[in-house]
Amino acid sequence: MRDFSSSIEWLSLNTATVRRQWTLPQIIDGCARHGIRAISPWRDQVADCGLKVASRSIRDTGLVLTGYCRGGMFTAADDDALSTALDDNYRAVDEACELGSPCLVLVVGALPGALEGRAAHRDIGRSRAQVVDGIARLLEYARPRKMPLAIEALHPMYAADRACVNTLEQALDICDALDPGATGALGVVVDLYHVWWDPKLQDQIRRAGARRLHAFHVCDWLTPTTDILLDRGMMGDGIIEIPKIRGWMEDAGYAGFSEVEIFSAGNWWQRPGDEVLATCIERHRTVV
Amino acid sequence: MRDFSSSIEWLSLNTATVRRQWTLPQIIDGCARHGIRAISPWRDQVADCGLKVASRSIRDTGLVLTGYCRGGMFTAADDDALSTALDDNYRAVDEACELGSPCLVLVVGALPGALEGRAAHRDIGRSRAQVVDGIARLLEYARPRKMPLAIEALHPMYAADRACVNTLEQALDICDALDPGATGALGVVVDLYHVWWDPKLQDQIRRAGARRLHAFHVCDWLTPTTDILLDRGMMGDGIIEIPKIRGWMEDAGYAGFSEVEIFSAGNWWQRPGDEVLATCIERHRTVV
Repeated sequence: MRDFSSSIEWLSLNTATVRRQWTLPQIIDGCARHGIRAISPWRDQVADCGLKVASRSIRDTGLVLTGYCRGGMFTAADDDALSTALDDNYRAVDEACELGSPCLVLVVGALPGALEGRAAHRDIGRSRAQVVDGIARLLEYARPRKMPLAIEALHPMYAADRACVNTLEQALDICDALDPGATGALGVVVDLYHVWWDPKLQDQIRRAGARRLHAFHVCDWLTPTTDILLDRGMMGDGIIEIPKIRGWMEDAGYAGFSEVEIFSAGNWWQRPGDEVLATCIERHRTVV
Repeated sequence: MRDFSSSIEWLSLNTATVRRQWTLPQIIDGCARHGIRAISPWRDQVADCGLKVASRSIRDTGLVLTGYCRGGMFTAADDDALSTALDDNYRAVDEACELGSPCLVLVVGALPGALEGRAAHRDIGRSRAQVVDGIARLLEYARPRKMPLAIEALHPMYAADRACVNTLEQALDICDALDPGATGALGVVVDLYHVWWDPKLQDQIRRAGARRLHAFHVCDWLTPTTDILLDRGMMGDGIIEIPKIRGWMEDAGYAGFSEVEIFSAGNWWQRPGDEVLATCIERHRTVV
């Protein structure tokens, strides 16, 4: 397994981690200051500063991307909304190409309206079918543009309102169905927060293999967890066996970055951005 | 599928639902008043009024049990604590026998100390091995006493601190390992709150079959969910397809009760007990 204790060569910063402190240009400057060489930006942050500005700034700083967050949200209550969602995903692929991202991360969506507390229906099977159909159609668009898609299985506690793909096994079943040759055009994100609990995790990481392991997101699971969305812990503050699972990734052939992604209403979003980056770097060395 | 719209013959009340309003004797009286013929009591409630009093009161009222909550919590940081936990489980089996319960429900435990925010270690694999060992040893005690054990898979959001068995598939793998003949001595609880999201749910219910489907707990999943422990919704207030999943249970041969179990810091625990029971009955008829 690669030794991360003396280098941050394989540290990437998911830009949500300091979204409350900084704009994307400020994040890019912060990464340059701290010697972080990779980021994974969010669409809203890119839109805020403009795609061309973001793209040029990333290139000028010498940063690489480890993903682009995010496409997906394929589910809807009617055909018009389905079609609008797909169009928006085409734009996300275009943006990911412009930014030089190695993949577009997909958070697939769940029961339409549930995120606003007004689910249009309860049929998660219908949502799951819409997701498979949506990914299939997006793949037709993304493949000729050479933009790999990466399905992110979300924790089952988000199954109703954010993503109805909830295990790595389920994500890989979709990969098998839509890209049986494992060409690399469709793969998965392994985000520790969402999958650490899974008794089949090691087997499914092995099953995915290097061709389908498109990204690795690190953080920690806190006990107690006090907020369902905004309590993603800093590495080392919780109970996830991060090095063990990173070892499983490497055994399966993954040789990419560890992307730090912390959401935290109560803690990390309250501190100065430079302090957050310094802690990410220190924990990456000592914990990851 | 059995029609529940005109009868509450198959409604059972998990006594946690009105634990804030009533003692166990008051719950038993309440059930008699409302025509509810089955309950599933908790150990602390039984202990509060005394095992003999509880047992006699249940028999005198003509109530039947659908389970006894709960054994489990097998995991520990050292051998002494493991042994103490096992002894306590033997007592739970004895009590379940005295009460005439059809099974002892097992919430298996997770990382020792995590519930108090001080996990003794992070090795969930070790906890899972302790759980299998604990169930194996408890089964040796329970089998000659003819007390079936029922493993309750808990939602993955409880994997760190309450139960490291988190899918029905995982629970059934344990059943296969410890009771390969499917004698009925070891089975599962299907609790909608914990398993509704699982893409393999229908397959695993079918796999379990009548011999291993020991109980069926109903409630609802609210969007948004505002508390990780105390926001189990009333049937009909959330997004679970209750009749569909009950149909899967019946197709697999389950012909028992639907046990209503609501935890709700914000709502149902604030209302008078009789109002809660009346709502459980109405929703059982119209939603379940």
